[in-house]
Amino acid sequence: MIKEIKDIHRNFETKSECANRLHHWVEKNRRYTEEGTCASYIPALRHADPHQLGVCIIGHDGEIIKGGEADVVFTMQSVSKVISFMAVCLTHGLAYVLKHVDVEPTGDPYNSIMRLELKKPARPFNPMINAGAITVASLLPGVTKEEKFAGLLDVLEMLLGRRPSVDEAVFFSERETAHYNFALAHFLKAEGFLKCGVEDAIDIYLRQCAIEVTTEDLARIGLVLACDGYDPLCSKQVLPSELARLTKAVMLTCGMYNASGKFAAFVGAPSKSGVSGGIMTAVPPRRHKVTPFHNGCGIGIYSPAIDEAGNSAAGVKLLQHISAEWELSVF
Amino acid sequence: MIKEIKDIHRNFETKSECANRLHHWVEKNRRYTEEGTCASYIPALRHADPHQLGVCIIGHDGEIIKGGEADVVFTMQSVSKVISFMAVCLTHGLAYVLKHVDVEPTGDPYNSIMRLELKKPARPFNPMINAGAITVASLLPGVTKEEKFAGLLDVLEMLLGRRPSVDEAVFFSERETAHYNFALAHFLKAEGFLKCGVEDAIDIYLRQCAIEVTTEDLARIGLVLACDGYDPLCSKQVLPSELARLTKAVMLTCGMYNASGKFAAFVGAPSKSGVSGGIMTAVPPRRHKVTPFHNGCGIGIYSPAIDEAGNSAAGVKLLQHISAEWELSVF
Amino acid sequence: MIKEIKDIHRNFETKSECANRLHHWVEKNRRYTEEGTCASYIPALRHADPHQLGVCIIGHDGEIIKGGEADVVFTMQSVSKVISFMAVCLTHGLAYVLKHVDVEPTGDPYNSIMRLELKKPARPFNPMINAGAITVASLLPGVTKEEKFAGLLDVLEMLLGRRPSVDEAVFFSERETAHYNFALAHFLKAEGFLKCGVEDAIDIYLRQCAIEVTTEDLARIGLVLACDGYDPLCSKQVLPSELARLTKAVMLTCGMYNASGKFAAFVGAPSKSGVSGGIMTAVPPRRHKVTPFHNGCGIGIYSPAIDEAGNSAAGVKLLQHISAEWELSVF
Amino acid sequence: MIKEIKDIHRNFETKSECANRLHHWVEKNRRYTEEGTCASYIPALRHADPHQLGVCIIGHDGEIIKGGEADVVFTMQSVSKVISFMAVCLTHGLAYVLKHVDVEPTGDPYNSIMRLELKKPARPFNPMINAGAITVASLLPGVTKEEKFAGLLDVLEMLLGRRPSVDEAVFFSERETAHYNFALAHFLKAEGFLKCGVEDAIDIYLRQCAIEVTTEDLARIGLVLACDGYDPLCSKQVLPSELARLTKAVMLTCGMYNASGKFAAFVGAPSKSGVSGGIMTAVPPRRHKVTPFHNGCGIGIYSPAIDEAGNSAAGVKLLQHISAEWELSVF
Repeated sequence: MIKEIKDIHRNFETKSECANRLHHWVEKNRRYTEEGTCASYIPALRHADPHQLGVCIIGHDGEIIKGGEADVVFTMQSVSKVISFMAVCLTHGLAYVLKHVDVEPTGDPYNSIMRLELKKPARPFNPMINAGAITVASLLPGVTKEEKFAGLLDVLEMLLGRRPSVDEAVFFSERETAHYNFALAHFLKAEGFLKCGVEDAIDIYLRQCAIEVTTEDLARIGLVLACDGYDPLCSKQVLPSELARLTKAVMLTCGMYNASGKFAAFVGAPSKSGVSGGIMTAVPPRRHKVTPFHNGCGIGIYSPAIDEAGNSAAGVKLLQHISAEWELSVF
Repeated sequence: MIKEIKDIHRNFETKSECANRLHHWVEKNRRYTEEGTCASYIPALRHADPHQLGVCIIGHDGEIIKGGEADVVFTMQSVSKVISFMAVCLTHGLAYVLKHVDVEPTGDPYNSIMRLELKKPARPFNPMINAGAITVASLLPGVTKEEKFAGLLDVLEMLLGRRPSVDEAVFFSERETAHYNFALAHFLKAEGFLKCGVEDAIDIYLRQCAIEVTTEDLARIGLVLACDGYDPLCSKQVLPSELARLTKAVMLTCGMYNASGKFAAFVGAPSKSGVSGGIMTAVPPRRHKVTPFHNGCGIGIYSPAIDEAGNSAAGVKLLQHISAEWELSVF
Repeated sequence: MIKEIKDIHRNFETKSECANRLHHWVEKNRRYTEEGTCASYIPALRHADPHQLGVCIIGHDGEIIKGGEADVVFTMQSVSKVISFMAVCLTHGLAYVLKHVDVEPTGDPYNSIMRLELKKPARPFNPMINAGAITVASLLPGVTKEEKFAGLLDVLEMLLGRRPSVDEAVFFSERETAHYNFALAHFLKAEGFLKCGVEDAIDIYLRQCAIEVTTEDLARIGLVLACDGYDPLCSKQVLPSELARLTKAVMLTCGMYNASGKFAAFVGAPSKSGVSGGIMTAVPPRRHKVTPFHNGCGIGIYSPAIDEAGNSAAGVKLLQHISAEWELSVF
Repeated sequence: MIKEIKDIHRNFETKSECANRLHHWVEKNRRYTEEGTCASYIPALRHADPHQLGVCIIGHDGEIIKGGEADVVFTMQSVSKVISFMAVCLTHGLAYVLKHVDVEPTGDPYNSIMRLELKKPARPFNPMINAGAITVASLLPGVTKEEKFAGLLDVLEMLLGRRPSVDEAVFFSERETAHYNFALAHFLKAEGFLKCGVEDAIDIYLRQCAIEVTTEDLARIGLVLACDGYDPLCSKQVLPSELARLTKAVMLTCGMYNASGKFAAFVGAPSKSGVSGGIMTAVPPRRHKVTPFHNGCGIGIYSPAIDEAGNSAAGVKLLQHISAEWELSVF
C-alpha cells in the first residue's frame, strides 16, 4: 500500500522536485569520487578535479534537470565509440560492419590484444573495446583521415545540432603515448581488419576520443537512443530505429568495460563510459509508469575519478541510486 | 501510416489469431533446424529428432499458446543454471554469492578452464558458464548432495507447482564423459571456490542438467521472471523482485553462450539456452502497447539441433522472428 | 698462463682434495638456502629442515665424493618424471611416446592447464611438466595401477640395484590436495591422451613422486645418463644409448621448470629438479680434460628450500659454483 | 666390435672422404625440401629455389668442406638474432641485458604477442623470439639507428673479417608488411622495454634480417662459437668465452623456434635458424674422438623451403643425418 501511495506521489513530482532530489543524490554520492582516481596517462585527464560529479537528465518531453558540476567540458574518450559505430553502420549497413567487428562481450580488458592472437579470424569482439573501435574508425566513410573524421562529426552534429570541437592538446598528448593502441592497430592491419593505414586509424580514433562535450550533450544523445533514434527535441527520426536499438543492446552488454555485467545487473540501462569520467545512458520508456521520465530519457554523467574497471566511480554509484529510485532498468 | 494501422490491428489479435501466427512462424523457421546438429556427446541427446521445433508462450493473464512440438519432454541442461543461481541467492543472499561467482560476460567457451588460471582470484566470471554453475551447485543449501539437490528442486517446485523428475539415463551418460567438468571442478576446488567435494558438486550439477521439462515449464518460469518474481497464474510473489530482475540481467548478458551479444542485439529478451535445445525466455512488460503479450510473457522453446555456439539453431531464429513481430526486445 | 697452471694443478687433484673443495663449496653456498622456502602444500615437505644442503658426485671410475647432508632420505617428486619417461620409452618405443607427449620446452608453470585448452591437439609439451608426466604415468606397461607402478620400479631397480621404497605418508598427503593434478588428468582424459583411468594415473604419478632416494641414488642415475646408458659401476649397458642421450636433451631444455633456460646458460648440465629439493644432474664427458670428473659424472643434490621456480635454491647455486670450477657445462 | 672398427676407420677419413660423404648426404636429404615451402610474405624469399640445399662445414683446423648449393647468397633473417644478442652483451654486459630480455624458452610462436600481455613485467622470454630480438635491437650501442646498426655490423665484421652487405630490396619488402613486428615493438615500448623509438627498433631489426651471407659465413661464426669465442682461423679470442658459451646455451634451448626441443633431442648441437632457410650451427669439441671434426666445427646450411615451425625442412634433416653419423650432439 504504502509503496503504491509513494509511487503515486512520485508520479506527480514536478520538475523542480525532481531536480531537488537529483541535487540531493549527487551530494550523497559525491563521496564515491574518493574510490577512484583520474586517469593518469594523459596530462589533461590527470589534472581534472577528482571531486567533481555532474549529471544531466533530459526527458522525452524535453525537460532538463541537472545536478552538481553538470556544465564542465570534458573529452568523450570511449563514449565516442558509440558514435563511430553508428556512423559506420549508417554508411555500410550492419551486415558489412559485423564482418569486421562482432557484438559479443569479452571478459578481457578494453585494450587487450591477446584474443586477437588466440582466436582466428581476429575479428574484434565488439566495437566498445579498443580493437573494435580502431577497426570501426578505419571503416568510417571517406578516404583520407580528414574525411573519415568528418564523417564521424557529421553524425555527432546530426545528434547534437552543433559541430563539436576537439581538444587538440588531449589529442596530441594521447597520441604521444598510444603505444598499446598502435600495437592493436598494427595487429589488426596484419590480420586484414583495418581498412585504412595504421597511422590514420589511430589518428581518427584518438581524435574522436578528444571531442569535447558536456553532460547535456551526452544526455541528448542518450535520449535519441532511448527513443529508438527519434529526437523528440526536434521531432525528427535521426537514426534508424533498428540501429538505435541494436546500439543500446551493445551498450548494455559491452559498454561499461569489464564491469558491464554488474552494471546491467545493478543499473540495467544501456550505457557507455569513458576514461575521462563521462557516462552516456539511454533509458528506454518503461512500464513502471509512476516514476519520473517513464517515457524514456537520456542521462549524461561526468565525474573524472575512475574505478579499476575504467568507469567513473561516483558516476556508477549515482546511476545505481537513480535507477533504484526512478526505475531505470530495462529488466 | 500503414505500420500504424497494422499495429492497431495487432492490438486486437485474439489468442487464436496469435496461435495461428505462431504456428505459421514455427513452420517457416523449421528449416533452420538444418543449420544445427544434436549434441553428440550424450546418447540421449544424440538420438533426439533434429527436425523438431516447439514453442510455448504464456502471457501475463495466463493465456497459453503453443506451436510445433511443444509437448516433448527434454532435459534442462544449462537452462537449470538459472534455477540453481536463484536457489543459492535465496539461501545465502546475493552479496555472499557474488563472492564466489561474478556476473560478468566472458568471450570464452562455456566449458573453458583457461581464465581460471589466468585471472586471480579464480572466481568464475558468471553463473551461466560451467565453472560458475559448478561453483553455484556447491553453494546449494544442505550438506549432502541429496540435500543440495533437493534445495534446487524446492525452487523448481515453487516455480512449476510440481516436483520435476530426473532422466537418470541422461545423468549417468553425462557423468560417464564429464571429464571437462571434473577438470573445472578440481581446479575450482584447488582455488577454494567449491563449497563441497568435487564428486558431489559434479553429481549435483549433472543431475540438475538432467531434470525433465517441457516448453510450457520453461515458459512458466520465464513468465515469473518477466513479472519480476510475481507468478500471475497463482497470484503470488514467489521470488524477490530484485533477484528476478538481476537474474534477467545475467541471462541477457551471459545466457546464450558466446552468442549472448548477438542475441541481445537481435532478439533482446533475457534468455537461457541448453545443449538439449531448450531456451527459456523472459519478456518483461514493454511500452509497445499494441503488440500481443505487451504485459510480459514467458517463452519456452525446444529444438534439439544446436548451432556452433551451443544454442538451438531454429529456436534462436524463431525467437528473432517473434521478437521482430511482437516487439520482445527490452531495448 | 696462470689459468693454465691452475688447470694443470687441478688435473692432479686427488679424490680427497676434490672432497675438500666440495665440502668448502657446500658451506659457501649454504647461505642460499635462505633464498628459498620448503614446499608448503605437503606436510612432509613443509617440515623438512630448510638449512640442509647435501651433494654427492660419482665419477666414471666409481669414485664417490660427498658434501653436506648428503645422506638425507627424501622423496623424488618431479625427478621421478625422468624415470617414468624412460620407462615408457623402453616399453613402447620413442615414436609411440612422442605421439602422446612432445619434447618441447614451454614457458608455462609446471602445473599449467591453459595450453592444453589453447593448442589442439592437447598433447602435453614435454614429459617434465605435470600434464606430460601424468600422461606418461598412464602409458607405463601393465593394466592395473599396481602393474604400471611396478614397471616404473623395475627401471629404478635396474638403475639403482635396489628396489626403492615409497613414503606412503607423503603419497597420501599429496593425494589429499592433488586437485590441480586431477584437473590436468581429467582434461587429458577428455582429450584422449590418458591411457588409463584418471584415478589410476594420479595414483601412479603421486606414488612415483613419493619414492625415497638419497643424493647418492640421484648421482648414480645421473652417472648412467652421463655415460649414455652405460653403468660403469657394474660395467653394463642398462639403457639404450639413444634413449639416454635424448633424455639428457629433454632434461636440459625442460628439466628445471621455468628456469631451464637460465640453468642451461649458467650451469649447462642436463638436470631435473623436484619440489622436495632434489636435483639429479648428468655430466657427460667433456673436452676440458684437466678438470676432475672430465670423463663424466652424476651429481645428486638435496636442499629442501626451493626458489620461486620450484628448484632447490642453494642446490642451483652450488651446481653453478661446481660448474664454473670444474667445467660441467656441455657448451 | 664392428662399430669400433668402423669408428677407427672414420678417424682416418680424409677431408676428401668427408666431402664425398657430405655430398652424398646432401643428395640423400634433398628430397625433404619437398616437405617445406619458401616463406611467402617476402617476395625475395618467395622466389627462392625451393629445391636448393647447401652446406658448409669448417673445422677447428680450418678445413672447409661443402656440399650442394653452398655458395648461394641469402639473407640472415633470424640467424642475425644471435649476433645482435652478442653485440648488446658485449656493450652492456650480460647482467644489464638480462634485465631486458630473459633466456627462457617459450612454447609460443616466434612472433607471439600474447605472453607480453599475460606475464608482468612483459620482459621477452628470450632473444631468439621476435619480441626479444626487437628489444635487443633497441639496446645496440649508439643513439641513432645508423649507429646502432653499425654496432651490429662491427661484431659481424669481427667474426667474418668483412663487412657484409644488406639486401635493401628484402629490407624494404619486409618493412612493408612488418605489422606483427610493429605490434610487438609498440607493446614493448608501452611496457618500457624498448630503448629507442619504435620505428628505429623495427628499422634496425629488419635491416639485420636482410644482411647477406653464405653458408660459409654461418659456418665461420658457428666455429667461433664452437671454440668458445676463439677464432682458430686467425688465432684470436674474438668473443669472451663466457658469452660464447651462454650464447650456445640460448641457441640450444631457444634457437630453432618451436622445434627447439626436438632439435636438441635429435641433433643436439646449438643452432639458430631463419625463415630464409639458413641454419647456423656450433658444434663444440666432443669426447667421441674418432669422428671427423671432433675438435669442434661450425656448420652453415641453406635450404629455403621451411617447415611449419619455420626451420629449413631439408636443413634440419641433413643436420640430423650428419649428427647421427659424426656425433655432433653435446649430449
